[in-house]
Amino acid sequence: MNQSVKDYIVSINSAIEKENFGDKPQELYEPIRYIMSLGGKRMRPLLSLLSYQLYKDNIKEVIPASIAVEIFHNFTLMHDDIMDNAPLRRGQQTVHEKWNDPVAILSGDVMLVKAYQQIIKYCPKEKLTEILEKFNQCAIEVCEGQQIDMNFEEQEEVHEADYIEMIRLKTAVLLGFSLEYGGILAMDNEADQALLYQMGVNAGIGFQLMDDLLDVYADQDKFGKQVGGDIIANKKTYLLIKAKKLASGENGTELKKWLMAKDFDKEEKVNAVKDIYDKLSIKELTEAKMNEYFEKAFKNLEDLDAPSEKKIIIKDFFNYLINREQ
Amino acid sequence: MNQSVKDYIVSINSAIEKENFGDKPQELYEPIRYIMSLGGKRMRPLLSLLSYQLYKDNIKEVIPASIAVEIFHNFTLMHDDIMDNAPLRRGQQTVHEKWNDPVAILSGDVMLVKAYQQIIKYCPKEKLTEILEKFNQCAIEVCEGQQIDMNFEEQEEVHEADYIEMIRLKTAVLLGFSLEYGGILAMDNEADQALLYQMGVNAGIGFQLMDDLLDVYADQDKFGKQVGGDIIANKKTYLLIKAKKLASGENGTELKKWLMAKDFDKEEKVNAVKDIYDKLSIKELTEAKMNEYFEKAFKNLEDLDAPSEKKIIIKDFFNYLINREQ
Repeated sequence: MNQSVKDYIVSINSAIEKENFGDKPQELYEPIRYIMSLGGKRMRPLLSLLSYQLYKDNIKEVIPASIAVEIFHNFTLMHDDIMDNAPLRRGQQTVHEKWNDPVAILSGDVMLVKAYQQIIKYCPKEKLTEILEKFNQCAIEVCEGQQIDMNFEEQEEVHEADYIEMIRLKTAVLLGFSLEYGGILAMDNEADQALLYQMGVNAGIGFQLMDDLLDVYADQDKFGKQVGGDIIANKKTYLLIKAKKLASGENGTELKKWLMAKDFDKEEKVNAVKDIYDKLSIKELTEAKMNEYFEKAFKNLEDLDAPSEKKIIIKDFFNYLINREQ
Repeated sequence: MNQSVKDYIVSINSAIEKENFGDKPQELYEPIRYIMSLGGKRMRPLLSLLSYQLYKDNIKEVIPASIAVEIFHNFTLMHDDIMDNAPLRRGQQTVHEKWNDPVAILSGDVMLVKAYQQIIKYCPKEKLTEILEKFNQCAIEVCEGQQIDMNFEEQEEVHEADYIEMIRLKTAVLLGFSLEYGGILAMDNEADQALLYQMGVNAGIGFQLMDDLLDVYADQDKFGKQVGGDIIANKKTYLLIKAKKLASGENGTELKKWLMAKDFDKEEKVNAVKDIYDKLSIKELTEAKMNEYFEKAFKNLEDLDAPSEKKIIIKDFFNYLINREQ
């Protein structure tokens, strides 16, 4: 990873550490400090800084404003973990597990308000309405994406286009907003602001498809989670949706058998489904789809009215993410 | 109730009915329309209109902005009902009962964003920062109040002052904000804006104490819920806190017995605890405390730099609430 990017992340982490969020009642603020301290890539505020540096040099000035998107992201994690019954987040207990559901609901609510507070405190007044309108839109779409994702779990069949739309809402629009946000803070070129948003959405869809791929094809020694977890859980990822669509004859029967199986050896199921994926070229098809979105994102980057040498850091960062193994 | 107040409520309800909130996914928006249609007194937007009319006549113009506080209030109800495991709200199934917890969490989240959207869409730009700062503060305090209320349920002893502080946060500050909000929209007199807030907080504490009283002393034929519900559930209301503090000797032993009782006849418990309350003059003490806050609110109203004839409608409305029997 580029040294500037590393420096940005250090600055973001240090700004988050300095934030106290609140004192009493501690049941409300302890969970906020806890989830914010679990780390992660800090990708969303980082994207805001990366788009800002395309146009302006005084990065330090926008670090406090950039934290808003990280607070918002962690609010969604806290609430999603309740809804998904997730026991762990970044290898640590989730908030609703460590405390309880009411604490996780209420601390999450406070975090959403804190995200607004951070925007209102640190954004210039003349840009506040525009930023808040876009942030609201994004926040609502993220909730819509989460609901659609939950609906998919109950649905027999999910279409490829609906899946892409779900990950656009659930994951990609926040990356789009984060980039656009840095752009709005830096300059007034609306065409570039729209391109930054599109770049984030395209990259976001690409990264989510990559997550789906890694879950099946990552090197277990380098991957943080269990490889094949999505297969074991019948998770409706791009790979499974594509395979269900393409599988016919013996492949179809075999896939259906594994999807219905109640009692199975996990490794056996993972290997069997991977075999079907291989026969149907699911890896290549997913990579093609993913690259389609990455290429759009790189094209968006190229089209920006910003100095080429400033674009390199973003290009490098995207490539770093594309080459990640976990 | 005064005819103007009735007209205001009709206008508020009609504005809420016209609001669609959103379409897809319907699991997200159906619950929002559902909870918003359950009715209630619409007290919060009404308070915004009542403070606005003190200074300006074009009430219709602020109705859309006033809806924000009703959306926010219903967001808190939706999430509180999950936390409190409440089966019913205004005699109808709660959202988490009718749908499920994830839907109630996520629809509530969207409502919080929608409250911001409503403010941002309908408030004048030059007042937006001020309004949002105060709204954020209020929203956070409401969450703090809910958490402190939940904490009280686990605590052996709750002090009177801590209880008053809890209801100030959980209930009263939103009434304060609602009044102040109408004032900010109408004029720039900061002293009056602060007085409006104080008036709402004082009245809010008074009304909550009145709720506590009505739960024990209301006429069952006129009261919507079961009279004595708080006593049956050992709810730490002002009355119980005061009684626990004052009860000694036989009263103390008797009260403790009923608080510990696992298996009891509900009516017998309600009557027995009421007897203890009577011996300790709990009704009179609570009324005195309540009137202390109402008097402060009326004094705040008097001190406002607004026409006396415009104040009458607020005075009448408060008196209407003070004389309510349910």
